[in-house]
Amino acid sequence: MSEGSTFGSLKQLLVGRPIPSHLAHHERLSKTTGLAILSSDALSSVAYATEEIVRTLILAGVAALAVSTPIGMVIAGLLLIVAFSYRQTIHAYPSGGGAYIVAKDNLGPTAGLIAAAALLIDYVMTVAVSIAAGVAAVVSALPEWHVNRTEMGLACVVLIAIGNLRGIRESGRIFSVPTYFFIVSMLALIATGVYRALTGGIAPIVPAGTPTPSGITAINTFLILRAFANGCTAMTGVEAVSNGVPAFKPPEEKNAASTLLIMAGLCVTLFMGVTLLAGAYHVVPLVESARGYETIVSQLARGVFGGRGVPYYAVQAATTLILILAANTAFADFPRLSSIIARDRYLPRQFMNQGDRLAFSNGILVLSFLAAVLLVAFEGDTHALIPLYMIGVFVSFTLSQAGMVRKWRREGGEGWRSSALLNLVGAVATGLVLVVVAVTKFAEGAWIILFLIPVLVLWFRSVHKHYARVAEQLSLRAFAPEARNHNTVLVPISGVHQAVVQALQYAKIISPDVRAVYVDVDAAATAAVRREWETWGRGVPLVVLTSEFRSVMEPLLEYIEQVDAERPDDFVTIVLPEFVPARWWHHLLHNQRALLIKGALLFKPNTVVTSVPFHLRK
Amino acid sequence: MSEGSTFGSLKQLLVGRPIPSHLAHHERLSKTTGLAILSSDALSSVAYATEEIVRTLILAGVAALAVSTPIGMVIAGLLLIVAFSYRQTIHAYPSGGGAYIVAKDNLGPTAGLIAAAALLIDYVMTVAVSIAAGVAAVVSALPEWHVNRTEMGLACVVLIAIGNLRGIRESGRIFSVPTYFFIVSMLALIATGVYRALTGGIAPIVPAGTPTPSGITAINTFLILRAFANGCTAMTGVEAVSNGVPAFKPPEEKNAASTLLIMAGLCVTLFMGVTLLAGAYHVVPLVESARGYETIVSQLARGVFGGRGVPYYAVQAATTLILILAANTAFADFPRLSSIIARDRYLPRQFMNQGDRLAFSNGILVLSFLAAVLLVAFEGDTHALIPLYMIGVFVSFTLSQAGMVRKWRREGGEGWRSSALLNLVGAVATGLVLVVVAVTKFAEGAWIILFLIPVLVLWFRSVHKHYARVAEQLSLRAFAPEARNHNTVLVPISGVHQAVVQALQYAKIISPDVRAVYVDVDAAATAAVRREWETWGRGVPLVVLTSEFRSVMEPLLEYIEQVDAERPDDFVTIVLPEFVPARWWHHLLHNQRALLIKGALLFKPNTVVTSVPFHLRK
Repeated sequence: MSEGSTFGSLKQLLVGRPIPSHLAHHERLSKTTGLAILSSDALSSVAYATEEIVRTLILAGVAALAVSTPIGMVIAGLLLIVAFSYRQTIHAYPSGGGAYIVAKDNLGPTAGLIAAAALLIDYVMTVAVSIAAGVAAVVSALPEWHVNRTEMGLACVVLIAIGNLRGIRESGRIFSVPTYFFIVSMLALIATGVYRALTGGIAPIVPAGTPTPSGITAINTFLILRAFANGCTAMTGVEAVSNGVPAFKPPEEKNAASTLLIMAGLCVTLFMGVTLLAGAYHVVPLVESARGYETIVSQLARGVFGGRGVPYYAVQAATTLILILAANTAFADFPRLSSIIARDRYLPRQFMNQGDRLAFSNGILVLSFLAAVLLVAFEGDTHALIPLYMIGVFVSFTLSQAGMVRKWRREGGEGWRSSALLNLVGAVATGLVLVVVAVTKFAEGAWIILFLIPVLVLWFRSVHKHYARVAEQLSLRAFAPEARNHNTVLVPISGVHQAVVQALQYAKIISPDVRAVYVDVDAAATAAVRREWETWGRGVPLVVLTSEFRSVMEPLLEYIEQVDAERPDDFVTIVLPEFVPARWWHHLLHNQRALLIKGALLFKPNTVVTSVPFHLRK
Repeated sequence: MSEGSTFGSLKQLLVGRPIPSHLAHHERLSKTTGLAILSSDALSSVAYATEEIVRTLILAGVAALAVSTPIGMVIAGLLLIVAFSYRQTIHAYPSGGGAYIVAKDNLGPTAGLIAAAALLIDYVMTVAVSIAAGVAAVVSALPEWHVNRTEMGLACVVLIAIGNLRGIRESGRIFSVPTYFFIVSMLALIATGVYRALTGGIAPIVPAGTPTPSGITAINTFLILRAFANGCTAMTGVEAVSNGVPAFKPPEEKNAASTLLIMAGLCVTLFMGVTLLAGAYHVVPLVESARGYETIVSQLARGVFGGRGVPYYAVQAATTLILILAANTAFADFPRLSSIIARDRYLPRQFMNQGDRLAFSNGILVLSFLAAVLLVAFEGDTHALIPLYMIGVFVSFTLSQAGMVRKWRREGGEGWRSSALLNLVGAVATGLVLVVVAVTKFAEGAWIILFLIPVLVLWFRSVHKHYARVAEQLSLRAFAPEARNHNTVLVPISGVHQAVVQALQYAKIISPDVRAVYVDVDAAATAAVRREWETWGRGVPLVVLTSEFRSVMEPLLEYIEQVDAERPDDFVTIVLPEFVPARWWHHLLHNQRALLIKGALLFKPNTVVTSVPFHLRK
């Protein structure tokens, strides 16, 4: 009993008291809280999107950085296209239109499963990338912490996981703080930066490290496409609002649509602001070294605010917080999506288990584990993780938009052509980005995801097939159970004592046909057992088996086989006296014979193994 | 079924086919095979005993090495005293007189347990030291292998463990080869060395490494005592023959006694031979470095045989082989002793389990694990392990001899006084060595063993107390079982399907009072279950429970509590349909609800949990 309650207390300390089902309904979101909760993923990508563009361009020299402005503008344009495209999803799927559902409904189960695989990967990558970028913001401000980057990332994963096992996603108000703190800080940074640039007050930014080696390659289309592909990280998270429509206050669709457009506008503003200012302030990406690494945003904030003062630290803190919030979003999305996929029987049903606190605990644990593995494998380096991030995001974008096109074509309705056209533009645009990412980032890690998606789809299918087979085997249609009326009960004993007497008592209650079985390994001991049996055997016949190999198991299993053969269709029950020690470590002092017998008989039909517990008090 | 047989085949490949009990009788040992099998531990210490003396003396300069001869002579004298002392044990305990039995019989259980703890530690150390020294002999000949010392040691442990799990200790003839190979090689080495020394043909030995830093301390009594303590490793293993008396051919006592004296004579000859020659050839111990380490015996063999020729490699090979054989001896002794201690209920009874091949598998596994830990912790360095070795050996020597003195005094008989005197001399001599070792090697590791022995004794006692309590609780003396005639059977169901129908069939056979239990988490699903129950329920009442926390477990456990309270003294049986998947990994696709329920009810008296297996065919 003691370990049960010890574990219980520990669990309660970590994840809190159970929450009753009737409290499951979330507080509905206003536009203000909705923006805070649903836009953290999209907005937070501003922290690394510009950086990823210039880190690629610098390879062709400082002059090539000028190309970042047109690349940024193309990405901003795409972002708006995708946002308007998703705005249509809001109206078409007021109950929440994730890529899995949209693709499955309109393009068929395979497309749905591809979208599902892409999304699950996407969520894992969101956690890894956001935490890595959040840690990068911290170590930009505090370079001496750079050596502990991986450990800090892992600590974040653990804290967010515990928070989510407790069910923190319920409280929207707390989450508004980091998002609005970030929006305000970044807008202040951009406004100050623009003002200084216009008034000619740009001070040179002193690099805090070695600049990235530049000019090692000529500027060419491939390089520009790679920079573009990297910059498209700015678009991640745009879909979040369309997934969360039912969480809004009524009128849900209208509130969600407005929130989406506000978010898109903020995204474009912040992303273009950082990109333009990085050019204006001649920010150059630095080489990562053991001494640390300073992000573009950190350099920019230093330059604009004239050093590491309060405004600088505010920007870094806000960036870290919103990135952690973005990671937290995936901790709500991954378990929810995996529970939906499990409900459709494409994932193990354990993903549907809701814990005491109404969280899908298994999804949270799997996500934490995978994100932790990625952070360790890539040493918490955002730049190394990015190529793996993009594939999942754009596969799901493309399938979702393509699904919408199909939906409009099939359903028709007023103005369906213009709706379909808008989604088609979205699908083609995101599809093109997908191709660009797959080609330019293939060798850097995109291949892993291109390989994983079909593997996951095949696994989903095999899980589905298994459940279908089980359902078929369990089906009661045309089922005529055999008549079984007899139960032969065997009680294997290793001596005569209270636990055996109790097991015998139980055996006699459950069947009139009981036999005790003893394996003879020592003549004197056998004689003693036979003697005591006369007193305590309660009229139950004692079968004594001989053992050639001293093994107790083999003769016993042979005898069970033989008894089973007497009435092949009826039940045979093995009743075992089983000690329940007073302390868990006392288990180590007893042979686990009951366990062995259970293991050996597990695969035998019509054979039931029953332990009658005998409780040791000390 | 498949994984059972896969594991079975793997096990059979590693440890071989089962051996029937009637083949358990060993072949009896002649003096020749007895010497080979029982003396490897004692003889093999020649490989490191001289080395341990000179490694200490060199600290006071090369001149101090001259003291090694008198030290060696004292040790040789002690060895003979101990051998004659043990010769009396052979006659007093013809059935085998290990220190545990002798101490327990004559000095009481505590002394027996101290001896047992010392012996078990001794056996673990024998394995670690012998393998480390065997590997040292190999890397002396092949210095480039020095970096893999720990790995080679671990590989030896694994190979010897597998060999013993197969039961190789039965075949005496194979074991004669290394022992006699070693005796012949060493005698040849000594004879050649003495001949060359007498004919003035000593060539200087070119050191293969840096000599040990010398002259860092003055020669004093403490240093000489330390050197003496280290040299006493030559005496380890002398007791083996007296433990193995019943294994000899008749007349057992006479054969064993002769074998013991032959062994002692050989030990003294080889040990003094190496010690004297090391002095004559001016062998100086080398500093161990990354480039390797050459043992004294290896240096001596190079010097005597004039370089690394066939005779040199023969000596090194023979040394390695006998050391591995010595380690193997402990693999027979440790499991046998632990099975005897377990039979006396001072160790977990699992140590009594004999495997298919009649080996005490658990003892072998525990010994291998502990020896492997030591080899890793001490990086396979013989010299570092020696201080831990000596305590166990001399504690058991002293207790064993002291026990014999007590036995003579108590039993009297013809000439008991001279017998007692001889054993008293042995006890005092080994006791003094023990004190010298404990004092001079305390800081170098002896403290670990001085701490471990009482800890082990306390543990033995607590195990014993547990078994005594269990026996008391199981005792049938004055036991009057309560009359229990009723068995309420509950069948928790999560739906209606073939497995449930089968479980219900079983439940109805074992009791007239059966109730199915369903937890309502979804009104529609509950209605469906109620509908199907009309067709398939077989007249069994369906109890529907409501769940506040969506948890299925809590309401179920509460209901079981309630049913149990109806008839507190009678049995409640929970019958669970349990899927047995066709492939082991299919387990991962099913909720382990049966397991959870079993775990939750484990601590509840009178409650029996029964799984009725439902076998999935695909």
